[in-house]
This record gives sequence, C-alpha cells and structure tokens, in this order.
Amino acid sequence: MHNDYLKQVKSYLMSLQDAICQQLAQADGEQSFQEDSWDRPGGGGGRSRIMKNGAVFEQGGVGFSHVYGEKMPASATAHRPELEGRDFNACGVSLVMHPENPMVPTVHMNVRFFIAQKEGEEPVWWFGGGFDLTPFYPFDQDIIEWHQQAKNALDSVDEKLYPEYKAWCDDYFFLKHRDEARGVGGIFFDDLNDRSFDECFSVIKAVGDAFTKAYLPIVERRKNLAYTQQQRDFQLYRRGRYVEFNLVWDRGTLFGLQTGGRTESILMSMPPLARWEYNWQAEPGSAEEQLTEYYLKPRDWLSV
Amino acid sequence: MHNDYLKQVKSYLMSLQDAICQQLAQADGEQSFQEDSWDRPGGGGGRSRIMKNGAVFEQGGVGFSHVYGEKMPASATAHRPELEGRDFNACGVSLVMHPENPMVPTVHMNVRFFIAQKEGEEPVWWFGGGFDLTPFYPFDQDIIEWHQQAKNALDSVDEKLYPEYKAWCDDYFFLKHRDEARGVGGIFFDDLNDRSFDECFSVIKAVGDAFTKAYLPIVERRKNLAYTQQQRDFQLYRRGRYVEFNLVWDRGTLFGLQTGGRTESILMSMPPLARWEYNWQAEPGSAEEQLTEYYLKPRDWLSV
Repeated sequence: MHNDYLKQVKSYLMSLQDAICQQLAQADGEQSFQEDSWDRPGGGGGRSRIMKNGAVFEQGGVGFSHVYGEKMPASATAHRPELEGRDFNACGVSLVMHPENPMVPTVHMNVRFFIAQKEGEEPVWWFGGGFDLTPFYPFDQDIIEWHQQAKNALDSVDEKLYPEYKAWCDDYFFLKHRDEARGVGGIFFDDLNDRSFDECFSVIKAVGDAFTKAYLPIVERRKNLAYTQQQRDFQLYRRGRYVEFNLVWDRGTLFGLQTGGRTESILMSMPPLARWEYNWQAEPGSAEEQLTEYYLKPRDWLSV
Repeated sequence: MHNDYLKQVKSYLMSLQDAICQQLAQADGEQSFQEDSWDRPGGGGGRSRIMKNGAVFEQGGVGFSHVYGEKMPASATAHRPELEGRDFNACGVSLVMHPENPMVPTVHMNVRFFIAQKEGEEPVWWFGGGFDLTPFYPFDQDIIEWHQQAKNALDSVDEKLYPEYKAWCDDYFFLKHRDEARGVGGIFFDDLNDRSFDECFSVIKAVGDAFTKAYLPIVERRKNLAYTQQQRDFQLYRRGRYVEFNLVWDRGTLFGLQTGGRTESILMSMPPLARWEYNWQAEPGSAEEQLTEYYLKPRDWLSV
C-alpha cells in the first residue's frame, strides 16, 4: 500500500510535467522542450526538459526527478532522528521560466513528495510545493488573478490553506540582504502531512493543476506588449536578484550544491542573462521605483 | 602603540587604494573611478570606487573599508572565545575588475587587517589577503608571469610563503559543485599572525604593491586582441561561474549578506553581465574545452 503512495504520486508528477510542457510550448508557439534524461549514481534520476530562444520564453526548464536510496544521508537525519535506519524516495516537478519580454513575469512552480520507509513500521512522508510570480513591470490584474487562482485551487481542499501558504510564500521568497520580496508571491508549503495521504496528495494536485491556469492568461495578455531597451536592461538587472535569492537564500539550491546534487538540474532555474550594477537607483516616481517600493512589499492582493 | 598598528595599516591601505585606482584608470585610458563614500550604522564606513563602461574595464570596483565596534558580534566570537569582551577594528582593500575583452582575465585582489583590543591585555590581530586571476582564453605567459610576480613579492619576506599561499589559493577558489577551479590561481592567506607585526604587515604590503605589477602587463598585452561574438558569449557564460563561486562558496560574501553587511559593497564583485545555459558543453578540442580540462586544474605554473 505504501509503495502505492509513491506510485500514485510519481505517476501524477510525470503526467504533470508532460501537461505543463505541452501547454508552455503551445503558449510559446515557436519552441518546444528538449529532454535530457539523467541517472543519479546513488539511485534514481530525472528528466530535465529545457526550452531556449523561444518566441516568448528566452530560457526555462521543467524538471522531473525521482531519487532514492537505502539510507538517508547523515546531514538529513541529524535533525530528524525518526528517519534514521529508513530508506527514502523523493520525487518532484520543478520549473522556472524566464520570458524575454520584461512585461511577462518570470515564474516558478514546484511540487514534491518525500517518503521514508522501514519494514514493519508506518512510513514517514510529507508533501511540499507552491508557485510564485516575479514580474518586472507588474499589472495589478495579473497579480490579483494569480492569487485568485492559487486561492481557488487550495479552497477546493480547505479554505484555511490559502492564507497560511500565501504568508509562508511571502516569508520564504524574501531577500533579507536587499529587504525585498523576490516577487509578488503566491503560495508555498512544506512538511505537509497533518491530514490523510489522500487529502495531502489532493493539495499538490490542486497546485500542480492550477499552475498553467494561473500563469498562461498572464503570458497571453502581456507577451506582445512593446518594450524599450531600458526596460529590457531593468529586467536583466532584476534577474540578478533572482540569482541572488537562489544562490544565497534558497535552502534547496544551497543544500543541493554544497552536498553533491546534480548541478545542472539544480541550476536550471538560473536566467539566460543577468546584470549587476553598483548601487543602481531607480528614478523617483518611475515604474522601476514602484516595483520595489510598492509591489515587492508583501500585501494581501485579494483585498487590494 | 597598538592604535599605531591600526593607524599604520589604515594609512597604507588608503594609499594603496589610491595608487591602484590611478594605475587601473590609466590602463583603461577612457574611464576613471567614481567614489561613493558610505557610513556603517554600527561604526566606521568605507569608500567604494567604481568604474563602468571603460575602454578596457566593462565594470569593476576597488573598495576600502574600515569598520569597528565596541563589541564583537556573537557570531564572530562563537568559535573564538579569546575575542569576547574586546572591541574590534577591521579594515581592508578589495577589488574585482571585469574586462570587456574576453582575452583579458578578470582579476581579484584583497588585503585586510583585523585587530581586537581590551584594556590591559595584548591585542589580538591578524592579516589576510591575496590575489587570483580568472582568464577565459588563457595564455601561458600571462599565468606564469602572474605567479612569478606573486612569488617575487612573497619571497621578499620569506621564501616559504609562496608555495603555502599558492596551494591555499587553489584550495579556496574552487567550485566544488562544478569540480573546477575559479581561475588559474595566485595566492591566498588568512589568520596571518605567527610573526612580528612588522613582518606580517610587510606581507600584505608586498602583496598589495605587487598587484598592478602582476596584472597590468597582462592587460596591456591582451586588451587590443580581436575576439568573436562566440568568445564574448563564452566569457559571459564563464562569468556565471564567478557569480556561483561568490554567492555559494565565498565565506566573506555569504557571511556578509546573511548577517546584514552592506550589500552594495559586498556585491561590487559581481559581473556587469553573466549568462547561464543548461548543460552547455564545449566542443571537443576547442579552446573553451581546454580552459576547463587543462587550465582550471590546479598546477605548479612555475615548473610547467
């Protein structure tokens, strides 16, 4: 029965990767995803799907991975003694898409499942995931609809979830060294196991299935908007912040890189091009200033 | 007398910043450095000098800082109980220059001094520093002369130093998640206090004074070489590695960003433009492949 847990989740995640790639490629209209399959020496592997130089997406990837082992690494059991002596399986779908047009937001989505088993004992498992949006030139309509889709998805399981996961997202995707949110948020959760397996599983299914419904209407509305070289430069500058968050604050990235994870898969989230400039300051009253002064402060977008 | 230590070092460091900026600006020929002075709320401050869009240097900075406080932060005394109850002064000069032409290497140099005092007790102090070179299309002559200058500088104090600091540099500037050195090395040292103050001070003076002698001849030889768009793209791709090292592995950067240091000064080292591409592979037998397969493996450049 517990192998059935893993089987169910894995099957859902692989279909989700297929569906998302198909829909993102359709939205792009020019490029599709190229698949790169890889094996993990310790057990398991993944299929990374990459799009480059699309009409909409300058670069991005949608990765599926399933890694397993007979024994949890010591670093993982140090703070979770209940996992000692168990095997483990971890699987997930993770994506970041970097549009070329600065009017289209960068986006991130992830859903994941972890299970550690031992003969004769109940399995230890949990789910995690979420999605969050990083616009450069935000439109209120986009942000509100994005959050509304997130809320609708979670409300289908329990109306308590959206407020909690929305706040968790604001808290997690925050660059303390800049005192800035990474974007306009969305939802984030981890260690989800306080309900039945079926109910917890239904949370990541709701999140996974809602992603394209939340993101693609924004892409459609903004992908043909005109933009200037100055706006493009600002996008590249802001992508520097994305790099800073991922390498300095994202626990998964930092832990993965420092403990021998598969570098190319972990860094699939990096932008195709990013820019830094010492002490750059937006013009007072400009859209660029409004981004950091208004949009990148956590707020309740469904009551604006 | 111990305030005299600080005074001597600070005076040297400020002159060093002046001299280096003057010589780098002369080598550039078009742009000079713009100074941005800043105060640290807890005590002290710095003067950051930035060059942008030069004829040679696309972007770079030479920073001087002197920060102090009545009390060491708890994070700093946790592993150094001898520092508890002491005031502290830390000063240094740090630079990174990113040339536009991929035939000219990116360069980093740093010299620093730390002193913690308590009335009626001997001061605790140490020096650190070094310089290291990150070429994209390396020339053996450049690397050998770079290391020869480093050796000459350190030999003037003690012939034992170069081999030790050269190995330390190879060890420190290494991207474990890529299994690659950041560049072709140079020298690196920290916690230097096992000689008299005067002798230790003479080490950082030798290093500081040798920097432009080691770097500028390389700039002169390579700055007018022609390059292709493909070589420029490769440079931007490799600059991604520079970002990865600084944000994932450099203790000073990571510690500074995670503990409220001045972000703009810490990230003065970031490149003006950097590029990432999933699983990019150099052509077999190409100069790009040779960079990682030959040059970015630590070797004894003075016995090649």
